[in-house]
Amino acid sequence: MNSLKLLDKAVEQLASLPGVGRKTALKFALNLLKRDEKEVKAFAESILELKRNIRECSVCHNMADGDICEICSDPKRDKTTICVVESIKDVLSIEATSQYNGLYHVLGGVISPMDGIGPTDLHIASLVQRVEGDSRIREIIFALSATPEGDTTGYYIFKRLSHREDLTISTIAKGISIGNNLEYTDELTLGRSIVNRVKFNLNT
Amino acid sequence: MNSLKLLDKAVEQLASLPGVGRKTALKFALNLLKRDEKEVKAFAESILELKRNIRECSVCHNMADGDICEICSDPKRDKTTICVVESIKDVLSIEATSQYNGLYHVLGGVISPMDGIGPTDLHIASLVQRVEGDSRIREIIFALSATPEGDTTGYYIFKRLSHREDLTISTIAKGISIGNNLEYTDELTLGRSIVNRVKFNLNT
Repeated sequence: MNSLKLLDKAVEQLASLPGVGRKTALKFALNLLKRDEKEVKAFAESILELKRNIRECSVCHNMADGDICEICSDPKRDKTTICVVESIKDVLSIEATSQYNGLYHVLGGVISPMDGIGPTDLHIASLVQRVEGDSRIREIIFALSATPEGDTTGYYIFKRLSHREDLTISTIAKGISIGNNLEYTDELTLGRSIVNRVKFNLNT
Repeated sequence: MNSLKLLDKAVEQLASLPGVGRKTALKFALNLLKRDEKEVKAFAESILELKRNIRECSVCHNMADGDICEICSDPKRDKTTICVVESIKDVLSIEATSQYNGLYHVLGGVISPMDGIGPTDLHIASLVQRVEGDSRIREIIFALSATPEGDTTGYYIFKRLSHREDLTISTIAKGISIGNNLEYTDELTLGRSIVNRVKFNLNT
């Protein structure tokens, strides 16, 4: 294969990354080409190792190095609460807040008829099964996008679980962002933050 | 290594690509994680192959699959003209125009004291040597960025080659972009396009 074809192949692969066009991919490829062979090997290896060694947790569908992820197998985590999220990224985001000590359930997306994603394409059945099979679970928190799709998904799961009367089902608060000016907050968010106001104390 | 560390390592490597921050790198990593192992292998392989099989042309410093690149070794290319460019990317851009049939010389950058890049950091000596050693060469075209750094680099090379009186040294035309409205063209460019006006014919 000649050099142009090799470059083209690498550009095509790099352009498959989300949000990367052919121009950016070419920039990436030429940047990699400039590096030492050792560096490029480390680059490629890190990606291969990621895929080779990371699996999906059989309980919560988070990433795991074994059958069960570190959060599910951590004895210090609160086993009574499950936070339902769309993706692994959301788990990382919530973990970064240090405000949650329960378990997770990664759906793998939200219900979106426009994109052809129905309930059976997501890990909803396994969530329902998990709740049915574990009597310790007391609360389900929805931490889904504040979009019609996120709301639909939450509502769908709520309906599937609503027969369990001992279960508290909650959703994360919607309101103005901390540090944000009131005048730049959109009306829907501002309206919701008034309706869902909380009792004032020095920490809120 | 646990899954978070593996992810972190891949994110760090992906964030080393030009213009990619940690957030984008995380998006890339999670996207790769979602794919089949076979796909990820093809992705990593294409990068490794690129680095493993592409070398620098010993004549013009363009990319090559052997010792000499396809352009330098092509008998159909005009051996009397060398186009001096900053990077391999510029070679690809000029080749895409189909307007040039000569050879190239890739400098690997431009002189930029602010970035600590001097003439010895670039492939200037090899260009001078090339011109001295090859009596067929009749013209040198500078296709460098229209920036102070590009101009300085052109001027430096011009001084190094100006003793060769049989050599034509030219630079690509600066002027208004084709399809561009005159009123949106900056003054410097417009001024230059007037000073360097060319005789009208139906092709200009």
